[in-house]
Amino acid sequence: MRYRLGVRPKFGPLLVALLGGLAGVALAGDPTGAKTLKADPGLPVDYVWVLVCGFLVMFMQAGFALVEAGFCRAKNATNLLTKNLMDFVVGALAFWAVGYALITGTDWKGLIGTSGFFLSGEGYDVGNYLSFFWQMVFAATAATIVSGAVAERIKFQAYLLYSIAITGFIYPVYAHWVWGGGWLSKLPFGLGHLDFAGSGVVHAVGGLVGLAGAIVLGPRFGKFDKNGKPRAIPGHNIPLATLGVFILWFGWYGFNPGSTFSAHHLRISVIAVNTTLAAAAASLTALLIVLAKTRKFDLGMALNGVLAGLVAITAPCAWVEAWAAVVIGVVAGIILVAGVYFLEAIKVDDPVGAVPVHGFNGLWGLIAVGLFADGTYGNYAIEPPFVKGLFYGGGVDQLIAQLIGAGALFVWAFGVGLILFKLLDVLIGIRVSPREEIQGLDLLEHGTPAYPEFYTVRR
Amino acid sequence: MRYRLGVRPKFGPLLVALLGGLAGVALAGDPTGAKTLKADPGLPVDYVWVLVCGFLVMFMQAGFALVEAGFCRAKNATNLLTKNLMDFVVGALAFWAVGYALITGTDWKGLIGTSGFFLSGEGYDVGNYLSFFWQMVFAATAATIVSGAVAERIKFQAYLLYSIAITGFIYPVYAHWVWGGGWLSKLPFGLGHLDFAGSGVVHAVGGLVGLAGAIVLGPRFGKFDKNGKPRAIPGHNIPLATLGVFILWFGWYGFNPGSTFSAHHLRISVIAVNTTLAAAAASLTALLIVLAKTRKFDLGMALNGVLAGLVAITAPCAWVEAWAAVVIGVVAGIILVAGVYFLEAIKVDDPVGAVPVHGFNGLWGLIAVGLFADGTYGNYAIEPPFVKGLFYGGGVDQLIAQLIGAGALFVWAFGVGLILFKLLDVLIGIRVSPREEIQGLDLLEHGTPAYPEFYTVRR
Amino acid sequence: MRYRLGVRPKFGPLLVALLGGLAGVALAGDPTGAKTLKADPGLPVDYVWVLVCGFLVMFMQAGFALVEAGFCRAKNATNLLTKNLMDFVVGALAFWAVGYALITGTDWKGLIGTSGFFLSGEGYDVGNYLSFFWQMVFAATAATIVSGAVAERIKFQAYLLYSIAITGFIYPVYAHWVWGGGWLSKLPFGLGHLDFAGSGVVHAVGGLVGLAGAIVLGPRFGKFDKNGKPRAIPGHNIPLATLGVFILWFGWYGFNPGSTFSAHHLRISVIAVNTTLAAAAASLTALLIVLAKTRKFDLGMALNGVLAGLVAITAPCAWVEAWAAVVIGVVAGIILVAGVYFLEAIKVDDPVGAVPVHGFNGLWGLIAVGLFADGTYGNYAIEPPFVKGLFYGGGVDQLIAQLIGAGALFVWAFGVGLILFKLLDVLIGIRVSPREEIQGLDLLEHGTPAYPEFYTVRR
Repeated sequence: MRYRLGVRPKFGPLLVALLGGLAGVALAGDPTGAKTLKADPGLPVDYVWVLVCGFLVMFMQAGFALVEAGFCRAKNATNLLTKNLMDFVVGALAFWAVGYALITGTDWKGLIGTSGFFLSGEGYDVGNYLSFFWQMVFAATAATIVSGAVAERIKFQAYLLYSIAITGFIYPVYAHWVWGGGWLSKLPFGLGHLDFAGSGVVHAVGGLVGLAGAIVLGPRFGKFDKNGKPRAIPGHNIPLATLGVFILWFGWYGFNPGSTFSAHHLRISVIAVNTTLAAAAASLTALLIVLAKTRKFDLGMALNGVLAGLVAITAPCAWVEAWAAVVIGVVAGIILVAGVYFLEAIKVDDPVGAVPVHGFNGLWGLIAVGLFADGTYGNYAIEPPFVKGLFYGGGVDQLIAQLIGAGALFVWAFGVGLILFKLLDVLIGIRVSPREEIQGLDLLEHGTPAYPEFYTVRR
Repeated sequence: MRYRLGVRPKFGPLLVALLGGLAGVALAGDPTGAKTLKADPGLPVDYVWVLVCGFLVMFMQAGFALVEAGFCRAKNATNLLTKNLMDFVVGALAFWAVGYALITGTDWKGLIGTSGFFLSGEGYDVGNYLSFFWQMVFAATAATIVSGAVAERIKFQAYLLYSIAITGFIYPVYAHWVWGGGWLSKLPFGLGHLDFAGSGVVHAVGGLVGLAGAIVLGPRFGKFDKNGKPRAIPGHNIPLATLGVFILWFGWYGFNPGSTFSAHHLRISVIAVNTTLAAAAASLTALLIVLAKTRKFDLGMALNGVLAGLVAITAPCAWVEAWAAVVIGVVAGIILVAGVYFLEAIKVDDPVGAVPVHGFNGLWGLIAVGLFADGTYGNYAIEPPFVKGLFYGGGVDQLIAQLIGAGALFVWAFGVGLILFKLLDVLIGIRVSPREEIQGLDLLEHGTPAYPEFYTVRR
Repeated sequence: MRYRLGVRPKFGPLLVALLGGLAGVALAGDPTGAKTLKADPGLPVDYVWVLVCGFLVMFMQAGFALVEAGFCRAKNATNLLTKNLMDFVVGALAFWAVGYALITGTDWKGLIGTSGFFLSGEGYDVGNYLSFFWQMVFAATAATIVSGAVAERIKFQAYLLYSIAITGFIYPVYAHWVWGGGWLSKLPFGLGHLDFAGSGVVHAVGGLVGLAGAIVLGPRFGKFDKNGKPRAIPGHNIPLATLGVFILWFGWYGFNPGSTFSAHHLRISVIAVNTTLAAAAASLTALLIVLAKTRKFDLGMALNGVLAGLVAITAPCAWVEAWAAVVIGVVAGIILVAGVYFLEAIKVDDPVGAVPVHGFNGLWGLIAVGLFADGTYGNYAIEPPFVKGLFYGGGVDQLIAQLIGAGALFVWAFGVGLILFKLLDVLIGIRVSPREEIQGLDLLEHGTPAYPEFYTVRR
């Protein structure tokens, strides 16, 4: 069942939809939608589902903006907000011009798509625009994750260039491997490498590119004292950051359930429940670990715990049941706290915890598929073959596919991320001047302080 | 028409869905959803409707967090945000383990459900997970309401224990009585006690448990002067509180219309309109009353007016028409203002007005059903028998059922609430030390000031 | 195909739905929805679509509130929030009583609707309530736009009266002309004047009434120095304003795609994509223009750029393809920046840029339909005749209809706006006293400072 414009009998799963791409299709596109509707009168509910979920995913941009601004210092708030706005703005345009084609275009040797730029020609079709909208908000999510890891010290123009690079190249290439019919989707283990809603494709890619950026940039002034001991740099506006996490959680109900790309998969209810329970379990776990350590109920860790759980459940959410979601969440909470300490130990400064949340837990989510998948849902399909992991008698096959994908992802995202940031650093310099960093990026780069009427203490 | 997994012809109303419960069902669950879809190909739009509405209800958690933090003092903002986050986190887990089973499990003497814990076994079914998701976000709403009434002086660990108690026991038992086939749903008056979307089950339960908590805790330092005169303690961040109310209003469009549990009830449009008009009428009424009294346009009262109207229309929203919604809202606005003054008169300190908004107006909503129901919609059904109140020739039958339910609710929620908070007080103490209260809860309990860079005056 | 209650075979487009109105219909309304469902079993997905999109449009109220409060000074924040709340509150009630009837009632000479007040009688019908809900959130949007242009100096009671006037009269009359079967919809050029989701009806009306208000009020103290040179008055809370824009962008996905009033128009995917790309293109354009001028990455202009692009694409979104959306956005960004400078040059003080964003770009959106419409979508219909503009071989016919509509809109909105504000000024005075303006409106009008615990510098 390939994705044929205008005549497909059912909108079908994202993977299949993307497999076909556009260029190989001889039929004319259907920009009006009348032919598509006639061919499958059941499509409206799928369109409504995918669009509404996509709107929720788009709204996550606001969540990221608030989390990053809130968890950083007031003197850099405008800068972080501008970055979060512009990575969506620039990202949408770059993804329209190039990125989408690299994911969904005609496959070249399992590595990259090669057709369908600018949504032009045959691409002017209601189904293709729907697919583009969905993919675009996902690409923009990957882009915006990096912003947190490189916060408070990266030059704005470097960030703009990076945004083009990730939405126009880094993300699309890896997404092609997994969701566009590339080599990872065709691994001869299990059902190939699987990543339901993007623990790996979106979150680990963003998190590991962010790790590369944080390493190339080096830590902020004052993050480590002269003995190398890390110092807390508290966020300036905790209500803002909290609201951001609630918005992200809300948006994640689009991200995960919407990834069925079909409302005819009633499994969407299971996905919504798993998403909730993993987030809750991870948050409680992180809260309790820090409570045991510090005797404080740490809101920052509980908030990042929510995000860690959400990231970890993103890949397996469609293939597991409630108790597994809870276990995946508990492990995610542990990984989060351990990851935060690990980064501090190796002197990497990740101001908002983007790397443990999205990077490490993204990888954990991929692995969890190979462990907990329980054989009740297929490869974006409600017919067999179903996905089975180690704990449900599926052997190690699926797990191997997951590990290969995780390894490839690490090499690609972290590797290309390192090259990109190094290159940008050589070409234009990526770190602001010491003076600017101390003064804050808002005034010099943007001319707009975030709170011009409030008295603040400079940190 | 009982709720039979996998073979029900139509998803059907929430009440009926819950009546059947899970344990009595011999059929295996359908975790894939393929069988369920085959049995009723019209279900996808109902799933989309219920899930999207459920997402909106979940987002109300952000609204409550902002309203409470904004209307309280900066020194307690982190504490209030943490409470609002953790009651959802802990509540979701407690509800998964226990609460949901108490509502929907096999009925025991009309009092409590007794099966279906942990969504396990037969409970692994797309329809059951959908029902769980919906019930869970409702339970979490009830939990979070209390937070406002006990704000700025309750110990965090006491609040965590309370959260488990309400989502795992207090709320589910009463919800079973009304929505789970318990004794209130079978009263021999009218169509039994009716509460469409939970003016009583959710809001009055939350508000009256909150009243109990506020009484047991006693007022905050400085709320009443030595002559017993109440003093205003202004909220520290009005934009935050305003945004919170807008988010709640937005989320309420999931709460009320989504409670049909079916998009095939086109009556959802009437519910959305009624929800809007009641909120508007209550807000304007509250604004005008305070204007007459103080010559000021009081934003705080207008905001709480919105919430009061929303709470009051929640029970009757499906059974009344537009003009009745306006009248219900006007009365809600009056009850709100009167309730605020009444609580101050009896020296109860409810920092954000949760008791008049959710408690008193929740009870008013229940009564309004018995007055204004106009015979155009049934017991979650578009076929007769339809619900008729006093003003539409239905006599006093339905009104009696509503009054009995309201009385039972008051006794249960306020009574068990009193016992719970008294018990917690004896066991672990529920009020923070005077020193901590004056200093603010953020530093000692959480170690995280909400605005570490801003100069604030301590109040 | 006229809108007949209870028996229409397909919900159909908004325009057609409104054409028929209510009073001419002999059939009884269907408040239960059972008959309507039976007559067309495919309606539930349309109801879900329209309602969910309507909820998103309602949420835009929060966006406007935050943008205006954030871009103005702290001393007026409570005032702006109260205005944004109350224009929705008062607007919903006025629109229920009068406004909706003026749009959709029996047409009188192409000028005004004359029946269907208070949703009473035959109006108690699920389809009519759906239509009302949609129209109401649109009317409230028009109302709230003005708030920004008259910010920081208008008396609250004047604003309340204005809110009633725009939602009860100014907006409905013009909306009747375009969407209610009035004279503009029947122009003998192209398919009559077209405005898909309201670049003109909602945004230009709001923006030009706001222009009238800003002119009658005169500039704020300190906006222009004694030589007439404009001075920047920076917004007090940039994160708030940024969040507001994200919320507006999110809500716009309800505004534009939802305006099909039918999920059976799969064209909704194209509309969502166009909406995104125009916003992104306009934002980037505005950012780059200001960058070239000032060497700063101006967040405020980038944010208003998003809104400018969204406004401009609102009329043509259903009739154009992706590249055209990008071009429309680029032009919108240019118009925005030019408009801001133009208003300063003619000494009009529009604190948040509402006039260039909504007024000028609203008019541009109307014109764009006549240029870029590509013949793939009809008059809220997926069957021919399709709309064709100048660049796609449609000649100047549609363009003429668009220009006539834009001219009529300017005369009506700006003219009646001038009369209204002049009249209010004569009757009750619309500007606060100099003392109050300098002190801020929050204390004297509302008694509630927005941030009572923070030290702020008064500007």
